[in-house]
Amino acid sequence: MPSSFAAHPAETFPAGTPAASQVFTTVLSQGPLTRLELARRAGLSAAAVTKAVRPLIESGYLVEDVDTEARTALGRPANLVRVDGGRALFLGLKLTGDAIFGVLTDLRCRILLARRVPLTDRAAKAVLASTAEVVRELLTEADGYGVRVMGLGIAVSGDVDRGEGVVRYSPFLEWRDVPLAELASVVTGLPVTVDNDVRALTVAEQWFGAGVGLSNFAVVTVGAGVGCGLVVHGRVVAGAHGVAGEIGHVTVDPNGPLCHCGNRGCVEAIAADPAILTRIRELSGVEVTDTTEAVDLARRGDAHARDAYSRAGEAIGRGIATVANLLGPERVVISGEGLAAYDLFAEQIRSAFAAAAFGSAAQCDLQTRPLPFEEWARGAAATAIQSFITEPN
Amino acid sequence: MPSSFAAHPAETFPAGTPAASQVFTTVLSQGPLTRLELARRAGLSAAAVTKAVRPLIESGYLVEDVDTEARTALGRPANLVRVDGGRALFLGLKLTGDAIFGVLTDLRCRILLARRVPLTDRAAKAVLASTAEVVRELLTEADGYGVRVMGLGIAVSGDVDRGEGVVRYSPFLEWRDVPLAELASVVTGLPVTVDNDVRALTVAEQWFGAGVGLSNFAVVTVGAGVGCGLVVHGRVVAGAHGVAGEIGHVTVDPNGPLCHCGNRGCVEAIAADPAILTRIRELSGVEVTDTTEAVDLARRGDAHARDAYSRAGEAIGRGIATVANLLGPERVVISGEGLAAYDLFAEQIRSAFAAAAFGSAAQCDLQTRPLPFEEWARGAAATAIQSFITEPN
Ligand SMILES: [Zn+2]
Ligand SMILES: [Zn+2]
Repeated sequence: MPSSFAAHPAETFPAGTPAASQVFTTVLSQGPLTRLELARRAGLSAAAVTKAVRPLIESGYLVEDVDTEARTALGRPANLVRVDGGRALFLGLKLTGDAIFGVLTDLRCRILLARRVPLTDRAAKAVLASTAEVVRELLTEADGYGVRVMGLGIAVSGDVDRGEGVVRYSPFLEWRDVPLAELASVVTGLPVTVDNDVRALTVAEQWFGAGVGLSNFAVVTVGAGVGCGLVVHGRVVAGAHGVAGEIGHVTVDPNGPLCHCGNRGCVEAIAADPAILTRIRELSGVEVTDTTEAVDLARRGDAHARDAYSRAGEAIGRGIATVANLLGPERVVISGEGLAAYDLFAEQIRSAFAAAAFGSAAQCDLQTRPLPFEEWARGAAATAIQSFITEPN
Repeated sequence: MPSSFAAHPAETFPAGTPAASQVFTTVLSQGPLTRLELARRAGLSAAAVTKAVRPLIESGYLVEDVDTEARTALGRPANLVRVDGGRALFLGLKLTGDAIFGVLTDLRCRILLARRVPLTDRAAKAVLASTAEVVRELLTEADGYGVRVMGLGIAVSGDVDRGEGVVRYSPFLEWRDVPLAELASVVTGLPVTVDNDVRALTVAEQWFGAGVGLSNFAVVTVGAGVGCGLVVHGRVVAGAHGVAGEIGHVTVDPNGPLCHCGNRGCVEAIAADPAILTRIRELSGVEVTDTTEAVDLARRGDAHARDAYSRAGEAIGRGIATVANLLGPERVVISGEGLAAYDLFAEQIRSAFAAAAFGSAAQCDLQTRPLPFEEWARGAAATAIQSFITEPN
């Protein structure tokens, strides 16, 4: 947690040129950096960096420290540019089928506080009321920092149109065409960014996690669903019509179980938690009610439960291979609450990936990273920071 | 064909900044443009455009014409900037399993001449000898233009590492790890760019074809193989390890026919020409020997032949849906010599795509575009132009 927050007037970010937000994002993700190193990493000229940095320093979003260690080629101390985390606050929410996870972060997206509110009703109206409640709590706590909260990010699974702020379709919440950004902005009074939850998590991984410095990587999440965030040429893929990263609907077996999308044998219809539970029930007749029971059963050696996890691992591995064959990422980060069962399907993921990866696509680095829902909420806060630094408010 | 080519001294391109090649590419693809419009489309400031344009005009790669129609806000004539096509020449070759297609183009990538040389031997040494022969012929013809040929692009199907200039694996040629760029440069004396053939075609489509002005689109080619070139965030996806766009190895049916990659039921194992022929032979016992016979049989109403094409269309449609679900492109261009049979599977491609596309990914625009092998060779020339304008020679 930062030691202190100075009170600043509540101005907006001096956005404008793409160079300015690129410079800010590079410092945010990889700073502190000397101007020289910043220019190199952002792929800009020294003059362009100077031009972009000046208004950001003047308005207090960036600060420059003298580093007595580092020196320029001329032997002068090289100043380090960094983001002043205490300059602004943000909120991030991750909606799941049964809870809202909320975080308060600073401008460097460091989590200051986390809250969890259970969801008993998934209707948009009820979720909106709970959203307002979490936001109110977090805003009250934020008051203590004496810095204004500049934006709210909300991460929702499904087909989300970030540009329009609309949840087009969310299977877990059973929503269709909910203008969430507008509704949440009315009840909270904040600028709201709505994005697909896996894409939001991918922004956080790109800025602060396993994707720092990589131009091409993917985040694959397993659990209640199977999702994928893609970074190509240094930017998160959003899709021309809002849909992207739908690894969950890659076909693994056209004669497999029916998927909620209407097709058969999608990755999600085999490897998502509900699919694993269904398969165990069908094979063994045991009425497993949740993932904990299913994992226990498999760890105790039950052949049917082990088979269900093994099939899930194979489906995930094939899905990842499809991503690798199409995009050739440097790394795929596997995460999500499903990692709790990782020992039960890790081997199948890797062997199915190796078998289905074409040629040198198999060189892609597969990593697992447990990321709790607070990290997903942090991803939502990261999308709010992204909107803040790129959009004129 | 351009009316005349002026003789210029054989200097290299004043490459350097990313802005310069971006400005040049924008004019190449979308010009003639006023400087104002150029700045807007390239996403650069007027000052950056002026800085980038000056050396390009001084060295004769760009020219500025007074347009008596267009006027600036101040009422002065607005000059139009365009590429001087006659300023440099390029060669492009497309290697297939049984021929080399070669073209001579100008700097605007307009085809001046096309040649075809049959390949009787697919060994690297023999292909290299035929390559040298085509290049010699084209260079002799190029002499008449009085302008130097600045580069050669070679397009090969399979796993090609453009950065290293190596064909890692080409199933059709049965090559592994052939350092083609170096070998071809030795026998031709030209700077050589080697790329995957579908990626090369995609560059041509992005610059001059169905992808002009689109940031996210795909080219899917059907025929001897099934390939895919992807443009994401305005750039062709190359893959961190050289592999990308391998739609041919998306699994459609894990119990389907064996693919040369070792897996079963890949798109290519169902929808490539040899797979269609095999299926017709298996179902009907008729010894069809080539695609023309197979298409004839199907058009005459043979149920087995129609079934083979129908299955192929379904596999292609599912492959395209996978691309759309992962990347959400604005448009998918379907091309390749397999389009000759398009009437036999168009409906299946569209219905399988519609069934498997998730949510708004189904809004993607599917277009067919017949592109003869000369266009693929033109794509190879486009990669040579790309290297010329981005790499210091
Ligand atoms: Zn599905
Ligand atoms: Zn295959």
